[in-house]
Amino acid sequence: MKTIKDIIETLQPVDMSLQPTIQEHLDDLTKPQGSLGYLEDFAMRYCLITGTATPVFGKKQIVTFAADHGVAIEGVSAYPQEVTSQMVRNMLTGGAAVNALARHANADVVVIDIGVNDPLDNASGLIRKKIKNGSDNIAVGPAMTLSETYAAMQVGSDIAIASAQEGYTLLGTGEMGIANTTPSAALFTAMLPCSVEEITGRGTGISDDVFTRKIAIIKQALAVNTAWCTDPVATLAALGGFEIAGICGLIMGAASQKIPVVVDGFISSAAALAACRICPAVSGYLFFSHCSAEQGHATFFRLFNVKPVLDLKMRLGEGTGAALAMQIVEGAVKVYNEMATFSSAGVSGKAD
Amino acid sequence: MKTIKDIIETLQPVDMSLQPTIQEHLDDLTKPQGSLGYLEDFAMRYCLITGTATPVFGKKQIVTFAADHGVAIEGVSAYPQEVTSQMVRNMLTGGAAVNALARHANADVVVIDIGVNDPLDNASGLIRKKIKNGSDNIAVGPAMTLSETYAAMQVGSDIAIASAQEGYTLLGTGEMGIANTTPSAALFTAMLPCSVEEITGRGTGISDDVFTRKIAIIKQALAVNTAWCTDPVATLAALGGFEIAGICGLIMGAASQKIPVVVDGFISSAAALAACRICPAVSGYLFFSHCSAEQGHATFFRLFNVKPVLDLKMRLGEGTGAALAMQIVEGAVKVYNEMATFSSAGVSGKAD
Repeated sequence: MKTIKDIIETLQPVDMSLQPTIQEHLDDLTKPQGSLGYLEDFAMRYCLITGTATPVFGKKQIVTFAADHGVAIEGVSAYPQEVTSQMVRNMLTGGAAVNALARHANADVVVIDIGVNDPLDNASGLIRKKIKNGSDNIAVGPAMTLSETYAAMQVGSDIAIASAQEGYTLLGTGEMGIANTTPSAALFTAMLPCSVEEITGRGTGISDDVFTRKIAIIKQALAVNTAWCTDPVATLAALGGFEIAGICGLIMGAASQKIPVVVDGFISSAAALAACRICPAVSGYLFFSHCSAEQGHATFFRLFNVKPVLDLKMRLGEGTGAALAMQIVEGAVKVYNEMATFSSAGVSGKAD
Repeated sequence: MKTIKDIIETLQPVDMSLQPTIQEHLDDLTKPQGSLGYLEDFAMRYCLITGTATPVFGKKQIVTFAADHGVAIEGVSAYPQEVTSQMVRNMLTGGAAVNALARHANADVVVIDIGVNDPLDNASGLIRKKIKNGSDNIAVGPAMTLSETYAAMQVGSDIAIASAQEGYTLLGTGEMGIANTTPSAALFTAMLPCSVEEITGRGTGISDDVFTRKIAIIKQALAVNTAWCTDPVATLAALGGFEIAGICGLIMGAASQKIPVVVDGFISSAAALAACRICPAVSGYLFFSHCSAEQGHATFFRLFNVKPVLDLKMRLGEGTGAALAMQIVEGAVKVYNEMATFSSAGVSGKAD
């Protein structure tokens, strides 16, 4: 396997040279030019990322990383920490929302313990890559060391590369980790020109009091960790978490294999932003699945200047938004591959 | 079969009595309450429309009505009229965009000739319900007589009722008809508090000159037909077209069978609006699939106060938007049916 440091140093931006060839095919399909809107953009980008004007659509996989967060002790979430491991078990038995939506999308789901604060004994099907029993409390110091952060990115990257070898041609991100909107909001604030208030939302649904505390804790985390945030990897280490670093690595590993990644919601977007800051070439390999109802996600899309596929006011994570958006991207590729052309179908062109 | 007049007179609004039971189940699923956003609304509405808190999701069907328009002679479209019949043949052989997206959604497509200006000889698979070789030119008089309009609505209603009996539990609308954004814009203007300029767009992609002419023709059609537009059915007859009336009838027939309908794009929305004006109880049975790039569709959504499922800047019609949105609605029902509950999965609830 490639090391994550190798990938960061050598990743090439998406090769745009096939753009005219792909556009020519899109314009020859039996529809007014451009009339399929973003579907045409998605098909174009899928082709460019995978490096072919005759794409083959393989299997789809959602990779859901689970980890706990030391900052949960500050009371920033509506749910107790044990819900992380309980939901991991729920995902492994197929009862979570991501399972229902992934089955619907005909996508496989894999669940990775990359830092859950529970041994998860007898959790059948779990991919065990635990680095530590949760990140440290960002309100008092860095979440992870640099070496833990690289290790978590390596886990993600290795999974993406293995998935590419198994015939997956579209990956989706997912996460589970009680309190993880808090480190995500901290990361966004550190990496975008915005305030804590502009990016912080109510996560799973916290009260006014808890929301006030959450904002204060994020400000404290940013202040306490200022000296650690010397570059993007160090910022991810200081303010992130194991599942966030895992997603970050997954994105880089997928890009190294020319596999597009559908980024899920708020937390996955924080990971994607970190990946883009660490390795700017990665940005061209991403589809952003949806704009979350989590206040602040729209701020991210505005400041990062990207457009999500869907806007359904979801705010669950797990990979649920990715599962839905993968179906749209796949539909776009099917349109590209399966539609008749004007000449083959005997359809008249536009009158001048 | 029920007559369309019977349906109009007897249709009941969606029965809301199961709302608390359905909400209780949604809130017991292993996710924070409301965190699946519009998916929860879609599941709720699917249950209420079909009249059960334990829904069974059956087959999906897209019903695409094709017809020609006398107003095409005014040069309001970028494509010649023969494209209607050519595209009907393309749909029947599976090469149109709606076919690719319907296959992706695992939905069946049926194509109805309800008024194409071509005999469509040897068009295998076509459902032949032609009422006339196209509507009359709305720029000089009514598009259809009242009896032709009722006949077209009856065709649509009969298809919906037959589909319900065949096990379809979700229908999508579609249309094909060169020049049909022109009567649609006329209908919107007649039925909404908006100007021709606010609702008229460039259809398949017309030049500035043609766009100016199109607006003038729509204004002329509205002026010429003022005396005919005495009630909603008469307005549909004067300014609509056969495929628009067919969709209108399909919606009413589906509602009479408690089958939800996913409304496609701009033209289908004009038909849906006409259906709601003719029979207001029908509105609760509709999902609006997407906001078209056709200028004016956003105006419709604002004035009619509904929110479409998708916004992908598509402007093709045929049922393409319905095919994509049906997948989202189906995903919502699967979430409702397949997710574990807090008690069954042993997941802790929200801390107080």
